[in-house]
Amino acid sequence: MKKSIGAKTLVYPTPVFVVGTYDKDGKPNVMTAAWGGICCSKPPCVAVSLRKPRYSYENIIKRKAFTINIAPEKYLKESDYFGIASGRNKDKFAASGLTPVKSGVVDAPYIKEFPFALECNVLHTIEIGVHIQFIGEIVDIQADEEMLNDQGVPDIEKVKPILFAPEMQAYYGVGRFLGKAFSIGKDI
Amino acid sequence: MKKSIGAKTLVYPTPVFVVGTYDKDGKPNVMTAAWGGICCSKPPCVAVSLRKPRYSYENIIKRKAFTINIAPEKYLKESDYFGIASGRNKDKFAASGLTPVKSGVVDAPYIKEFPFALECNVLHTIEIGVHIQFIGEIVDIQADEEMLNDQGVPDIEKVKPILFAPEMQAYYGVGRFLGKAFSIGKDI
Repeated sequence: MKKSIGAKTLVYPTPVFVVGTYDKDGKPNVMTAAWGGICCSKPPCVAVSLRKPRYSYENIIKRKAFTINIAPEKYLKESDYFGIASGRNKDKFAASGLTPVKSGVVDAPYIKEFPFALECNVLHTIEIGVHIQFIGEIVDIQADEEMLNDQGVPDIEKVKPILFAPEMQAYYGVGRFLGKAFSIGKDI
Repeated sequence: MKKSIGAKTLVYPTPVFVVGTYDKDGKPNVMTAAWGGICCSKPPCVAVSLRKPRYSYENIIKRKAFTINIAPEKYLKESDYFGIASGRNKDKFAASGLTPVKSGVVDAPYIKEFPFALECNVLHTIEIGVHIQFIGEIVDIQADEEMLNDQGVPDIEKVKPILFAPEMQAYYGVGRFLGKAFSIGKDI
């Protein structure tokens, strides 16, 4: 039996995106965001929403670029910290011990130790409400070689991305393989 | 060592959203979409991107409403099927044996058997490229009572949502609890 539970920002799963930017002085910053996802296949685009007071918001407005670093289980603490602290008064790279790498194609840094990063230029900026949505065109992806499968794609079982459960305020890992997409439903 | 792997539409995890709509004749339809996510906290909004040729695209343009049904492991086959078949020439509810329920607050149906559904009115329509992004304001959520935790939130461990791994074209389940958000990173 269904019950009305009100207008919550709740979907499962939600990603844990660590957004990489440079500030006006060229200092690299990272912040964690869960409001986002792929939004177009051609051009390949990813969306991520930030509140205006966030330091990374200013950075993206000025630099018109960002990276999306996929947070792995191994760096759960760091990924959570990146969502708590502000780059306005903290050097989050220094505090976490992680390493910023300058992207060769966009004006933003990615995290050396994370499994892969999308390098994006801002294509659209949409004022929705308290969140502003940035739609970034994915120019390239930098991925750890040892995580690639036979098709040259980062293997989700090696990447071990973190999932976020909003409202529950909890992180989960990826579970077991369930089936092949565009295949398992063919016999209906 | 990082390697450039090209501009792929790849993030982990990606959700499995089953989008519920009515067509011009009032026939309920569902289609599966992975390009989307929460995009604003206030007003509470969710984004989902569809290609123009999809039958559901026309439906959303006409009705200005849709539901997002969270696909559970139990209905993996059905959820995959909803992404393969088209409502233009198939009655996907009849074929799958699932039940459409008319939303009381938006002009769209949700799936009775799925764990929970977001009821949305279209707030913005953004032409990005081959995909059009619909930003829907979440008016309410209908959730199975037996899946709610003590706080009245659907428990991710009971919901058992499906994750999609793009490029790998594979579905996965949710794994183990890793930690509390906005908490585990505090000691950095």
